Amino acid sequence: MGIRAELKKGRMPEQVREVADSEGVDVEILKKGIIEGKIVIPKNKKRSNIKSVGIGYPLKTKVNANVGTSTDQANKDLEVCKAIAAEEAGADTVMDLSTGGNLSEIRKEIIKKINVPLGTVPIYQAAIEAIEEEGGIVHLKEEKIFDVIEEQARDGVDFMTLHCGVTLDTFERLKIEGRIMDLVSRGGTFLLTWMLYNKKENPLYTNFDRILDIANEYDITLSLGDGFRPGAIADSSDRAQFFELRILGELTERAWEQDVQVMIEGPGHIPINEIEMNVKMEKKFCNGAPFYVLGPLVTDVAPAHDHIVSAIGGAIASYYGADFLCYVTPTEHLGIPGVEEVREGVIASRIAAHAGDVAKGIPGAAEWDREVSIARKKMDWERQFKLIIDPDRARKIRDRVKPEIFDVCSMCGEYCAIKLLKDTLKEKKRGE
Amino acid sequence: MGIRAELKKGRMPEQVREVADSEGVDVEILKKGIIEGKIVIPKNKKRSNIKSVGIGYPLKTKVNANVGTSTDQANKDLEVCKAIAAEEAGADTVMDLSTGGNLSEIRKEIIKKINVPLGTVPIYQAAIEAIEEEGGIVHLKEEKIFDVIEEQARDGVDFMTLHCGVTLDTFERLKIEGRIMDLVSRGGTFLLTWMLYNKKENPLYTNFDRILDIANEYDITLSLGDGFRPGAIADSSDRAQFFELRILGELTERAWEQDVQVMIEGPGHIPINEIEMNVKMEKKFCNGAPFYVLGPLVTDVAPAHDHIVSAIGGAIASYYGADFLCYVTPTEHLGIPGVEEVREGVIASRIAAHAGDVAKGIPGAAEWDREVSIARKKMDWERQFKLIIDPDRARKIRDRVKPEIFDVCSMCGEYCAIKLLKDTLKEKKRGE
Repeated sequence: MGIRAELKKGRMPEQVREVADSEGVDVEILKKGIIEGKIVIPKNKKRSNIKSVGIGYPLKTKVNANVGTSTDQANKDLEVCKAIAAEEAGADTVMDLSTGGNLSEIRKEIIKKINVPLGTVPIYQAAIEAIEEEGGIVHLKEEKIFDVIEEQARDGVDFMTLHCGVTLDTFERLKIEGRIMDLVSRGGTFLLTWMLYNKKENPLYTNFDRILDIANEYDITLSLGDGFRPGAIADSSDRAQFFELRILGELTERAWEQDVQVMIEGPGHIPINEIEMNVKMEKKFCNGAPFYVLGPLVTDVAPAHDHIVSAIGGAIASYYGADFLCYVTPTEHLGIPGVEEVREGVIASRIAAHAGDVAKGIPGAAEWDREVSIARKKMDWERQFKLIIDPDRARKIRDRVKPEIFDVCSMCGEYCAIKLLKDTLKEKKRGE
Repeated sequence: MGIRAELKKGRMPEQVREVADSEGVDVEILKKGIIEGKIVIPKNKKRSNIKSVGIGYPLKTKVNANVGTSTDQANKDLEVCKAIAAEEAGADTVMDLSTGGNLSEIRKEIIKKINVPLGTVPIYQAAIEAIEEEGGIVHLKEEKIFDVIEEQARDGVDFMTLHCGVTLDTFERLKIEGRIMDLVSRGGTFLLTWMLYNKKENPLYTNFDRILDIANEYDITLSLGDGFRPGAIADSSDRAQFFELRILGELTERAWEQDVQVMIEGPGHIPINEIEMNVKMEKKFCNGAPFYVLGPLVTDVAPAHDHIVSAIGGAIASYYGADFLCYVTPTEHLGIPGVEEVREGVIASRIAAHAGDVAKGIPGAAEWDREVSIARKKMDWERQFKLIIDPDRARKIRDRVKPEIFDVCSMCGEYCAIKLLKDTLKEKKRGE
C-alpha cells in the first residue's frame, strides 16, 4: 500500500511528517494535497534512508538533475560523482539516464551514494538490452519492458518516467500537422521506432494496469513522460503535444483510482508567451497533478548557455504553477555535461524555481530575499555568504579584487551608494 | 537640430535610413516612432562613424553593457578592453561608468575604440571632481554639473543618464513608506547627499531646460535615470519608485516639446509577478517612451549568478514591452567584472532580449530560432555554429567529448532521438 492509500485509511506515513517539517506546512494540507493528487512524495518502499521530498502545490518548486552515461562516455564513477555534485548543489532529486556501460550497476551505485529520490526511464535499459541481446530495438519483447520496470523497482527507484502517451494516434497528429524536429525524446523515439516497425500500439499504454500494479507494490511515483514534447520553438504547443497530454490526463485518473502517485512531464521548447497556457492546460487536463517541466527552453539560438535559456522558462513556468523543474546544463544540445556543468545547471534551475516561488507567493520564499537584503544593507558579508545560493563562487569573486574599504565591494569602491547614503542619513540625523 | 526635428521638417537623416536597413523596418514606421517618441536613435552629432542603433517598439530589444573603472580598480586599458569585448559579444551600446582614475581620459579612449553608441552618467564625474577639488560631494557647485554635461557632450557621448526625478518630494515618499535598501543608484545617492546637506532641490530637476539646450545642440538622447529604483525584492514597486516615474513622465513631455529624444530607466529588483505592471506603468506614465531596464533582478539570493537572475527578469520585461536591457554580470553585488564576465553578461542579456522578441512577435525573431532548428534537425553542425549566439563556446563543448558517430553529440551518442527517428522514418518509407 502506498502513502496515498495509507492517508485515506487515516494513517500518517513518516514521509508526510518529514515533508511537513522541511516545508513548514501543516500535515493536513499535505494529506489533502496527496489524496487529491496535487502533491506527490516519490519514495520507493525499499528506500528508507533518503530525504522525503514533496512535489506540488503549495510546496516550494523542486529541481531535478539528470546524470548518466552515454555510449560516448560510459564512466560509472564520473556519473556517481555528478550525482553527488548535483545533490550538494541543492538538487531535490536526481535522475539516472544512463545509456552506456552496465546500466544496472551504474544505477545501483548512484542509488547507494545519494540521499535524495532517484528517478529513471526504464525504457532506456529495455531498449538498449534488446539491441545487445536481440540485435535491435524493434526486436524488443514486450515482456522485457515490464521485467526492467520490476528490476528497477526492486533496486529502489523512487520515480519512473514512462512515455505512456506515445500512441500511434498521437503520431498521426504529428504527421498531419508536420514538425521541424519530430520527436526529441529518447524514450519516446525508442517506443515509436518499435511501434512503427511492429505495427503495434505502445505496450506502456496498452498494459498500463501492469505498470500500476508494480507502482503500487513499491509506491513508485509515475512520471508520465511527454514523448511528443516539442524540440524547437517552431514546433511548440502543437496538436500532437496536447493530444498526448490529454492521454496522460486520462491515465492520471486511472492511476489515482489505484492510489498510485502521478506527476506529468512537460516541455521542452516553448516561447515565453505560451508558457502560462502550457501550465494551465496541464493543470486542467490532469486535474491538478504536479507538473514537471524540462526547461522550458525559450529560444533555440543559445546552445552553450541553455542553462540560462531554461532558467528563464523555468522561472516563468514555476510562477504560473509548475511544481518541478528539470535542470538543463550549459552542454545541452552539444554534449554530455561535466561535473562543473551539472553544478551550474542545478544552480540555474534553483534560481528559476525560487524566483517563481517568490512571485507565486510560496510561504517563506520572499522572506529569504528579505534576509539577504538586510544583510546586504548592513554590509554584513559573512551573513550574506551564509544565506545565498552559491557562497563559494560569490566569495571568490569578492576576494579577487579586494576593496580598500572593507565593507564595500570593488564595483563602486568608496562611492558605494549604500554606504554613502547611510553616512549621509547618519550625519543628517546628527545635524537635526 | 536633432533627428526628431529634422524628421518633422520632412528631412530623412542618414541614421534613420541605417536603422531601417539593419532592422528591416520601413523608414516611415521609424519616422512615426521617433516623432511620437516611441523610438530613439542615440547618436551625438560629433559621432559620425558609429553604427546607428534604434531603440523602441517595434524594433528588436537592445542590450547595453556597462564598463568603467572604480576606485579599487582604475585601469584604463582594462576598461577599454572590456568595452571592446562587450561590442564583440554583441552589445548594442556601451556605458562608461568610470569612477576611478582620469575620467575624461578613459571616456575619450573608449569613445575612440568602440563603434556603438556610448552612454555616461555625468553626475559621477561632477561629484568625484567636486570631492577632489572642493573636498566633498556636498560642496559641488551646481554650475559644475552643467560644465561636465557640456564637456561630455563635446566628447561625443550619445546618451546620458540624468537622475532628474530624484527630488526632495520623492525622498519624502521613501521616508514615509520605509525601505530596506533605501537608494542603490550611485548617481541618485550623489545627488541626494548634496540635496540633503544643502537643503536644495535637485539641480537636474530645477534646471531641466538647460539640459534640454545641451541635448538639443548635440542631439544627445536623455536617459532619465531612476535614482529610486528598488535595490531589494522587498522594496519593489513602492510609492517612491512610481512617484519618481511620474516626474520622469512629466519631464519626457517637456523634452519632446523641445524635440529632445528620451528614454526612461527602470528597475532593478522586481519579482516576476510585478514586471508586467512595471512595464505598463512606464509606457502609461511616459506616453510610450522607450523603457530601459536594469535587469530586472527577480531574486536577491543568487549573487555570483546575477546574470542569470537578470536574464530571467529581462526576458519577461522584454516580452511585456521593455525596449532596452542593461546587462548584469556574474559579479554584480560582489565586485568589478573582468573581461570574461562582461562577455557572459552581454550574452545572458542578448538571450533575454531575443527570447522576449520571439514572444512579443518582433518580425524576424522566431525565424532565427527556426533556422537553428532546421540546421539541428539536419545535424548540420557548421550551420548551427554559424547561426547561434556563442559559436566559440558551443564548439568547445562539442569537441570536448568527441562522439563516435560524427553527426550526433556525446549526450545521447548512438541513441540520439533525432537520428534514430530519421532512420526509422526513412526505413518505414522504404517499406511502404
